[in-house]
Amino acid sequence: MKMNTRNKEACVVVFSGGQDSTTCLLWALKKYKEVVAVSFDYGQRHKAELDCAKEITDELNVEWHVMDMSLLNQLAPNSLTRSDIKVQEEAPADDVPNSVVDGRNMLFLTFAAVFAKQRGITDIITGVSQSDFSGYPDCRDVFIKSLNTTLNLAMDHTFCVETPLMWIDKADTWKLADDLGGLDMVRHKTLTCYNGIKGEGCGNCPSCKLRKEGYEKFLKKYKNS
Amino acid sequence: MKMNTRNKEACVVVFSGGQDSTTCLLWALKKYKEVVAVSFDYGQRHKAELDCAKEITDELNVEWHVMDMSLLNQLAPNSLTRSDIKVQEEAPADDVPNSVVDGRNMLFLTFAAVFAKQRGITDIITGVSQSDFSGYPDCRDVFIKSLNTTLNLAMDHTFCVETPLMWIDKADTWKLADDLGGLDMVRHKTLTCYNGIKGEGCGNCPSCKLRKEGYEKFLKKYKNS
Repeated sequence: MKMNTRNKEACVVVFSGGQDSTTCLLWALKKYKEVVAVSFDYGQRHKAELDCAKEITDELNVEWHVMDMSLLNQLAPNSLTRSDIKVQEEAPADDVPNSVVDGRNMLFLTFAAVFAKQRGITDIITGVSQSDFSGYPDCRDVFIKSLNTTLNLAMDHTFCVETPLMWIDKADTWKLADDLGGLDMVRHKTLTCYNGIKGEGCGNCPSCKLRKEGYEKFLKKYKNS
Repeated sequence: MKMNTRNKEACVVVFSGGQDSTTCLLWALKKYKEVVAVSFDYGQRHKAELDCAKEITDELNVEWHVMDMSLLNQLAPNSLTRSDIKVQEEAPADDVPNSVVDGRNMLFLTFAAVFAKQRGITDIITGVSQSDFSGYPDCRDVFIKSLNTTLNLAMDHTFCVETPLMWIDKADTWKLADDLGGLDMVRHKTLTCYNGIKGEGCGNCPSCKLRKEGYEKFLKKYKNS
């Protein structure tokens, strides 16, 4: 089926059960009549991510699918998928952090697009952000725009990849969750910690630090506390 | 590992065991010191394709890997992967043939690129051709160029996607195989037939007709017969 127009009624959300994609899911639920969440199982060290995704989509009554991407793990072993490699606390100055799975966002978004087209959906939501870029090349706006063009050429379909968090920092991502009425859900039910601890996490890994600093900045900037 | 320069010594060939990719493999063996062939198992109706790929890479003494892409089949059921759907003999006037797996070339080339980067390889060879386009959007030159840009942005790597067959027809693909000393191999050991018959095939499916017409045109144009 060819589709030459945008379908503004429905979307697919690429959903990990973390802070960013949960905020995107809440955003999508305000904007679209039909929302479908897709998660990827690529041998993450913390299956807890998928448990969080299930709990959140159940609570929000959102259709949810998990896709098997274990092949990715075979191709690009790294510190988020192999328990024998330690996560670097700081990114090396001259390279991306070793928590990167090469091509991960490209593959996730392409699979999400194949799935979306089957359902007559054109809009795909992803929580990538250039603001907390951290050296990941596939979080950049220029990558997303190029990918959007390539997807449309590959499948002759009018995909629109939407990135509500592209230009906002973690503090404003907390603000967005709050505005959408989801602050408590994002605080307590999402998982972003590299050590697999839900909510506030271990407090020490790079992801927990970024999350905590963002939350404190949000409180200061918007809550006078 | 970042790579800001092209590695002209090595390449990855996306290899199905058919006429086009076998010709590309022969082409690559003349051009590069190190050649690695990758095939994809996505639940093709004819596992014979992978048998041909094995036989050819064994004979040419080429390193060969098979990647599991069964997820693609779950997402986009169609006539090349499901035995309960009949292959259309002619493409419908208003749409692509139903033998298309949406996003197939994009996923294959992206997986090949992740694999190539792991090996420090930048060049990726694919046998797509705009000349015998047949309605497949992901065989077009504009798609390949867009994909190449997206891959480079996604992984911060200098991929060069090479398409030796992009602008030549089936007759000149036979000519290329002949020039490379591989005419007999391509005639007898490759599989392109939709009904899974090696070499000259069933003779009746759209793929066999295209192959045969090309071969006859090649004989007439270059062999005076």
